[in-house]
Amino acid sequence: MAVYTRVDEDQLKDLLSGYGIGELTSFSGITQGVENSNYRLSTTGGEFILTLYEKRVDRADLPFFIGLMGHMANAGINCPKPVEDTSGQILQEVSDRAAAIVTFLDGTWSNSPTPQRCRAAGAVLARMHLAGADYMTLRRNALNSAGWMPLLEASDKGQTDGLLPDLWAQAKTRLEGILADWPHDLPHGVIHADLFPDNVLFIGDRVTGVIDFYFACNDFIAYDLAIMLNAWCFEPDGSFNITKALQLVSGYQSTRPLSNAEIAAIPVLCRGAAMRFFLTRLYDWINTPADAQVRPHDPMDYWRRLNFHHQVNTPKAYGFGG
Amino acid sequence: MAVYTRVDEDQLKDLLSGYGIGELTSFSGITQGVENSNYRLSTTGGEFILTLYEKRVDRADLPFFIGLMGHMANAGINCPKPVEDTSGQILQEVSDRAAAIVTFLDGTWSNSPTPQRCRAAGAVLARMHLAGADYMTLRRNALNSAGWMPLLEASDKGQTDGLLPDLWAQAKTRLEGILADWPHDLPHGVIHADLFPDNVLFIGDRVTGVIDFYFACNDFIAYDLAIMLNAWCFEPDGSFNITKALQLVSGYQSTRPLSNAEIAAIPVLCRGAAMRFFLTRLYDWINTPADAQVRPHDPMDYWRRLNFHHQVNTPKAYGFGG
Repeated sequence: MAVYTRVDEDQLKDLLSGYGIGELTSFSGITQGVENSNYRLSTTGGEFILTLYEKRVDRADLPFFIGLMGHMANAGINCPKPVEDTSGQILQEVSDRAAAIVTFLDGTWSNSPTPQRCRAAGAVLARMHLAGADYMTLRRNALNSAGWMPLLEASDKGQTDGLLPDLWAQAKTRLEGILADWPHDLPHGVIHADLFPDNVLFIGDRVTGVIDFYFACNDFIAYDLAIMLNAWCFEPDGSFNITKALQLVSGYQSTRPLSNAEIAAIPVLCRGAAMRFFLTRLYDWINTPADAQVRPHDPMDYWRRLNFHHQVNTPKAYGFGG
Repeated sequence: MAVYTRVDEDQLKDLLSGYGIGELTSFSGITQGVENSNYRLSTTGGEFILTLYEKRVDRADLPFFIGLMGHMANAGINCPKPVEDTSGQILQEVSDRAAAIVTFLDGTWSNSPTPQRCRAAGAVLARMHLAGADYMTLRRNALNSAGWMPLLEASDKGQTDGLLPDLWAQAKTRLEGILADWPHDLPHGVIHADLFPDNVLFIGDRVTGVIDFYFACNDFIAYDLAIMLNAWCFEPDGSFNITKALQLVSGYQSTRPLSNAEIAAIPVLCRGAAMRFFLTRLYDWINTPADAQVRPHDPMDYWRRLNFHHQVNTPKAYGFGG
């Protein structure tokens, strides 16, 4: 849940007077997204989300994110579509924050998606990768493999080892292994980079919304699938659910078959994806005051995923055929 | 914004299966209310709010709050109406919290309500006071005048004086004066006790919702109006807006005329109401860590209101006629 910027009716009415989307009938701050302040707006013209971009989002990146959502929506992906004001402008200024209105999407998400939903989500990821091929704006992945060692080094060794004896040194050894094996020449493109279950909305098994594009960037395309294998296919007890992985991978490949090089890289990409979320969660865990009202994610969930990945070394383990 | 208990689709679908209010189509955590976790639920049957009661709300008080909302709704007050499940039960258990579903209300609020809205809000407060007369459950005001000195004493003198030199001793002197003048025998009844502008929803000048009954209790009825004079009639620069006060008071009296004793007590009730919010905000201000993500309200807003109240000593100053 985000640092929260308050807005009130008068500001919203002012803002909406510049749009052609009806009169405000209701608004409330919502807790979706951890980086920004989000409001749900109901108007006589429909349902919308107003996002106020907080400090953790670089203003220089906003044209990339906003443009990407528009690009994806135009390509038929069910994602929030940025709404233009009557002068054609999307980015606004509200309470000293950059802000934008996007369409609201129906649908709900579950922390433990079914295999059917894994398949549908894999297919939608592949459709986004295809749609991203002609999106010409670039954004470097601020959390790419080059950033992982500095993140570990910024995490206090004593506090890290408080989670598990010798964790810091073990993480360093594993990270060195991942970096040594990290691929150099896989297909690049626009990736979502954070497609966790809470960012894909469903009604039944149908995807009704892909949201939260604020980590999107350019990186290896197959790395995005590795992030999903980590986020969608482990059970709460830490076990890997191969049925879900099979569905996720086959849903993906039904739309965009991976190259042999991509498939061969899946094991190290999965290790890297788990390491990336382990490291950011470790850093936040250590640096969030004990009495803060927002509890960070437990980094050890991703350490257990790393344990799994380090025991396997074939793409078959992730649902890829012989 | 509240400590936040997460719930997910599976829990909500389980919960809704016990109700007759349709299928879930969307949900999001919302930031309304500071004491509890709130979710907006959209179903094929309508719009609802699910509240999970957090630790700051005593479970023993829930029947009072839930019953009061039902009582007010039945009396024609536009307030959230508790929804029964198919077995007639309102209170549920979700994520180890007591929980209840209530109806969602359209409408928006503003931090600087117009005089017309002050009038309408005053009238609705009076209607609630009349409707409360036959609500038979009782709840002591946990923040009544007897609790104010302990609150001040629990606020560190050094940190208090860091806000303004000698503030702690000045507050003590003022509080002693208020307690010495505090009335003993005004009409008692159910009061909302927190009817700030963000708890009254409007469409235009029409009240469409009164929300957040979780401070409601039994106390002097006129004290509730004094809370509103403080919360609705001061401008952001600290000045008292007599036009708004006139409208608030005449809106109230159009529905429930105050007795002479109540009118005579308005000045001390206004001082007491300002002191109560000054003291809770002071306590929260001092005891909230500097790096917490929720910024407490500045207690000095209410100190400035106290400065105003201590310069006047007639009900006329608050919009009461000769």
